[in-house]
Amino acid sequence: MEKMKLKMLYSDLKSDIDVIEKELETALNSSSHMINDASLHLLQAGGKRIRPVFVLVSAKFGQYNIDQMKNIAVPLELIHMGSLVHDDVIDDSDMRRGRRTVKAQTNNRVAMYTGDFIFARALEYVTSIENPRVHQILARTMVEIVNGEVIQIEDKFRVDQNLKDYFRRIKRKTALLIESSCELGAVAAGVDPKNVRHLKQFGYYVGMSFQIVDDILDFVSTDRQLGKPAGSDLLHGNITLPIILLKDDPTIQRFIQRAEHGFVTEEERMAMLEVVRKSDAIKEAVKISNLYLKKAMKEVEALPNNPMKKKLRDIALFIGKRKF
Amino acid sequence: MEKMKLKMLYSDLKSDIDVIEKELETALNSSSHMINDASLHLLQAGGKRIRPVFVLVSAKFGQYNIDQMKNIAVPLELIHMGSLVHDDVIDDSDMRRGRRTVKAQTNNRVAMYTGDFIFARALEYVTSIENPRVHQILARTMVEIVNGEVIQIEDKFRVDQNLKDYFRRIKRKTALLIESSCELGAVAAGVDPKNVRHLKQFGYYVGMSFQIVDDILDFVSTDRQLGKPAGSDLLHGNITLPIILLKDDPTIQRFIQRAEHGFVTEEERMAMLEVVRKSDAIKEAVKISNLYLKKAMKEVEALPNNPMKKKLRDIALFIGKRKF
Repeated sequence: MEKMKLKMLYSDLKSDIDVIEKELETALNSSSHMINDASLHLLQAGGKRIRPVFVLVSAKFGQYNIDQMKNIAVPLELIHMGSLVHDDVIDDSDMRRGRRTVKAQTNNRVAMYTGDFIFARALEYVTSIENPRVHQILARTMVEIVNGEVIQIEDKFRVDQNLKDYFRRIKRKTALLIESSCELGAVAAGVDPKNVRHLKQFGYYVGMSFQIVDDILDFVSTDRQLGKPAGSDLLHGNITLPIILLKDDPTIQRFIQRAEHGFVTEEERMAMLEVVRKSDAIKEAVKISNLYLKKAMKEVEALPNNPMKKKLRDIALFIGKRKF
Repeated sequence: MEKMKLKMLYSDLKSDIDVIEKELETALNSSSHMINDASLHLLQAGGKRIRPVFVLVSAKFGQYNIDQMKNIAVPLELIHMGSLVHDDVIDDSDMRRGRRTVKAQTNNRVAMYTGDFIFARALEYVTSIENPRVHQILARTMVEIVNGEVIQIEDKFRVDQNLKDYFRRIKRKTALLIESSCELGAVAAGVDPKNVRHLKQFGYYVGMSFQIVDDILDFVSTDRQLGKPAGSDLLHGNITLPIILLKDDPTIQRFIQRAEHGFVTEEERMAMLEVVRKSDAIKEAVKISNLYLKKAMKEVEALPNNPMKKKLRDIALFIGKRKF
């Protein structure tokens, strides 16, 4: 269902997205079999390619040229892919009853270097762009994203965190790269500074809404829809928006303590999910996500007349209202 | 002893190396405690800083300016540091009887992201350099280094490899970054293309010799000198030059098979070391290292008159003749 919607949304950009898809295939080609296998897997898994799409749509407010834009869109998607690969490294899913197999160890090493390879390739693409501002924005974004990854580890199972901690975390985790996609597409296409700012802000707000929705879905979707147990975020100690809104609840507090020590039973997970789902926290979180979405729409309004304004709105709505 | 020699070698570059050391400290500062702790550890561990030194010495053949050169030297050392951090991730040393502790898992994740952070910082430094050729060389170098890391994993325990496989591997593992240090220092200082080529080739040959010596020392040094068991390379499946020269030896073949399955006893390690140490393979490997060193010296000869020619020779000799 969702895939259909996305296809329709992207329909008039299709040939340009195909160019990017082809370029991603080329970029991920290496002289190592293991990297190629890992990359092929990554390409076949697909992905929404939202970052490239935001580059293209933002660039359409200026001098649009796909041959130039692909050199922006491809590294942004590569940075996203590389960070996905690294997020999977040393994941619990590789653990067999606490023991790590030699194969899992090798896989982990290969995954780490595959991520490094993808980052290095991203860097290689960027060298073809002359504008030094593009380089600076991208480098800054990468530093902040990685910083965010470690802060996310530091904040794990920390119950004494507030909304500000959460927002700062999801900014780095998600919003920043979407913000940079919009900004870089616009900068490279020579959009005037005022509108670059609107597009950049739009990306930031959409990114925030996107991550909040993701964090909500982790509680309200079924295991099957998620492809993993619902509540996985909290099980791994990631304190997301619904939990911050619910942190004084005794069931939740106990759950976090038990999860930290790896003692959670299936019954406890179900009980936790019921508390979250029945609480006002979900409604509250949806409201906050919608506030970000509204702010994103305001930025679109401020942009000059252009058929792409509707596209930005449609994509934002699609992203902010996902329900699987 | 070695440290003293190095200090003397670097004496007339001291104030500039201090500038780089300070800049490295700044570069490694992040908003995450965990990254800062890991980085501090890395800085305190020191290091020979050969890559920065090669940047500076090469640049002295052109328009030398430390404020410009530090923006080349710092990212090169950061790339080296980042790859050291990643090499340590998921190392056997974290394993306790095959079981991985939660702490080791967290440490591994943090180490991975610390490496990513250091790479991203390197990238940030490079953005301050305008010359696009510098960017291209550096990006290409990173891609190749990472490719090499995975090929090293693919080649583990593979007995059917030849000298060419080995040379290609150590090129990527070590020689490339030293080659690029010389090349980039020279390019950024406006050295003429002919001499850039000599400096680049010099770096390549020195780097090859450096890694071969490292690989020899892993067999002929004591555990104490190495800070780890002698023969560790082969224990982990890394087939280095002395072993390639000895691969038909039945003790070595049996050792590799047993090491692959993690069955090596202390006696077997001692027996393997004795075979290697008593063989001609060590002498042969030293000879090959010296051939590279000789080629490096020839490149120095071809360079125009400059007090730095002696410095290049001295550093090359120091690197190629290490004995702890």
